[in-house]
Parts: sequence; structure tokens; C-alpha cells
Amino acid sequence: MADHNALPLVILAEKFASLPGIGMKSAQRLAYHVMSMDMQSVEEFAQALIDAKKNVRCCSVCQNLTEREVCPICSDEGRDRSVVCVVESPKDVTAFERTREYAGVYHVLHGLLSPMDGITPDKLRIRELLARISQGGVEEVIMATNPTVEGDATALYIANLLKPLGVKVSRLAFGLPVGGILEYADEVTLFKALENRNYM
Amino acid sequence: MADHNALPLVILAEKFASLPGIGMKSAQRLAYHVMSMDMQSVEEFAQALIDAKKNVRCCSVCQNLTEREVCPICSDEGRDRSVVCVVESPKDVTAFERTREYAGVYHVLHGLLSPMDGITPDKLRIRELLARISQGGVEEVIMATNPTVEGDATALYIANLLKPLGVKVSRLAFGLPVGGILEYADEVTLFKALENRNYM
Repeated sequence: MADHNALPLVILAEKFASLPGIGMKSAQRLAYHVMSMDMQSVEEFAQALIDAKKNVRCCSVCQNLTEREVCPICSDEGRDRSVVCVVESPKDVTAFERTREYAGVYHVLHGLLSPMDGITPDKLRIRELLARISQGGVEEVIMATNPTVEGDATALYIANLLKPLGVKVSRLAFGLPVGGILEYADEVTLFKALENRNYM
Repeated sequence: MADHNALPLVILAEKFASLPGIGMKSAQRLAYHVMSMDMQSVEEFAQALIDAKKNVRCCSVCQNLTEREVCPICSDEGRDRSVVCVVESPKDVTAFERTREYAGVYHVLHGLLSPMDGITPDKLRIRELLARISQGGVEEVIMATNPTVEGDATALYIANLLKPLGVKVSRLAFGLPVGGILEYADEVTLFKALENRNYM
């Protein structure tokens, strides 16, 4: 914004623009929107930022974000602790929980291997996963990272570390999305669907 | 977000989702991003929200957002106070200032007439504009609202109020955008460009 703009507005717009996926134009629009909110709503927004940062931490077991030392899923006696689903981020836990079909527990890596971007194994919560599996009681680890280069590489890397520990390691199935149209599926997906076909 | 998510994160995501143009998915992503920021950055963000709301107000002359009683443009002795450019929002002032060609002053309406949405003349800063023009010294008022139904209606409404005050009222020119391609111009724009043609 040009220098005729009020400084606090310029600063606020820059803060919004520092968030992922928000450009300078949107950030300016959001800053103006804040001006139209009442003071109480603005204070609640500011407090929500502080509260989230201050009161949310990683679960000491699965590394998912939680307010407690151990998250509700890890503390739930009804969950099957012998199956651990390894995911990239807390968003993925939300996605699996929406299916209401998965009864095991999770492990959140907080990223995927990407050496070009400086994301090496020590940047992810792999050490915590190995420590957890070493304690015993886990029979299967499901690698549920995205079907991308980074997701596949991370799954393979971790699988190789886990196998010597005598635990079963599986990978999510790749195939046609349910409700999808065969004609529009890409070649790789279609090949995977063919390769992993189930006999009826 | 499902209830296994940490409550402060859910609250923060809802705050982001209450902003215009941010859906629940993006809001969740932004809330997770805040978790990855350091505490100082989060506190600065929260403070920027409060500061903008607390320290920014409307210029007592032109109604643009500013930290001072009278904004830098209105206090600038070098600006031509006999020409007032009437715009919808502070964003439009920024757009005109970017041209570096306009030497007059502004009046910010903070909206456009839209009776269907409950935006009647008393909701805009029209009263302030009339008071300002009545004080004398203004020779021309340029209606610089958007070339939309609401923008045109607002310009016409204000023009009719201003004419009895003996002030010249003009409207921004409509025509082909500079650098635009004739073939892709819509019919109305092309018609306006033809109608307002300049003799060479």
C-alpha cells in the first residue's frame, strides 16, 4: 500500500499477506474488513490467535495438535492401539476421522521428506514414531501419506526403518476414486486400479 | 472441524472463516499455519489487529481511513482542494494515488447505494460530502464509483444532490482499457468507447 495509507492498516495487511495463500490485494481487503468489525470481535480474534498458539501443543504420543498432554484419540480406551496410521498433517487425521471407519490410532509426521526444501528426516516426527513402535504393542503401521513423489518417498523411507522392528507395514490403496468416471482418470491412477484389481 | 480437534484451533479457524473470501478449509489451513509461527510473530499479529481497529479512524474531511484527525492527503498543502474525487472505498484512493497524476482531493463514501441490501443514502458518507461542498471552494466533483449498476446509481443520486449547489459534476470516462484488445471488449464497453470518441 502507498504511504498515504494509515500505518496500522499497512502493518495489518502485511501480517495477513504473510499467511499462506493470501496475496497483498486480499490482505488489504481483509485489513479493511477488520476496520468494519466491532471492537469486541477484533479483540476476540486477537485473543483466538494467542490462545491457539499458547494452549495447543503436540500430543506426546501421536504428535497431533491438542490442548492436552495426550490427545483425545490417544486417550480413548476404545481405539485399537495395535494399528498406527502415519499421516503428514493434523488435517489428514480430520479426514480419516470423517470416514468414521478407522478405529486405530495415528502418528502425525508434520511434513513430508523433501531434501531440496531442506526437509530431512530429522525435521519430521520420525524419531518419535520409531520410539513408539519400539515400545511394542503395535502390529501394523499404515503409511497414509499423499500419493505424490514426496508422500511415496516418505512412506518408503519410514517403511524401511520399520521393517527391522518386525512390524507389518502397509500403504493406502491407490485406484479409482469412488464416484469417479473411468474416462477422466489419469493413466497412472488407471494403471494402479488395474494392477490392484480385486477378484470377485 | 470434528470434535477431536483442539478447541482453541477450532475457534481460531472459525475467526478466519468469518473473514470475507475465506472458506472453512482455508481457515483451517491458516489456523494450522499459526501453530507453526513463533510466539512473537503471533503476538505481533494479534497486536496489529487491535492497533488497526483502535488507532485508525475516518478523516474528518474526506472520510478516508487514517491515524490522524485529518489525513495526509487532506492536510497536504500541494493538493488542489477545488477538485473532489468521490470514491466507494479507501482501496479506490490507493488506486488513484498509484497513477501519480491526480492532484485533487477525495471523498470516500464507504459503500455504494444498494436498497435491496439495506444500503440507503443515510448509510453512506453523503451527508458529509454535501456539508463539505456547501462550505464552498469546490469547483468540480468527479464521480469515480465503479461502472456497475450500484456505482452508476450512486453517482447519479449524488450528482442530482450536488447540481443545485452550483458545482460541476463529472463522471469517469468509460471506454477501452489501455492495452486491451478490441476483439475481446464487451458490447457495452465498445459502445461507450464509440460514443465517447475523441476527434484527432
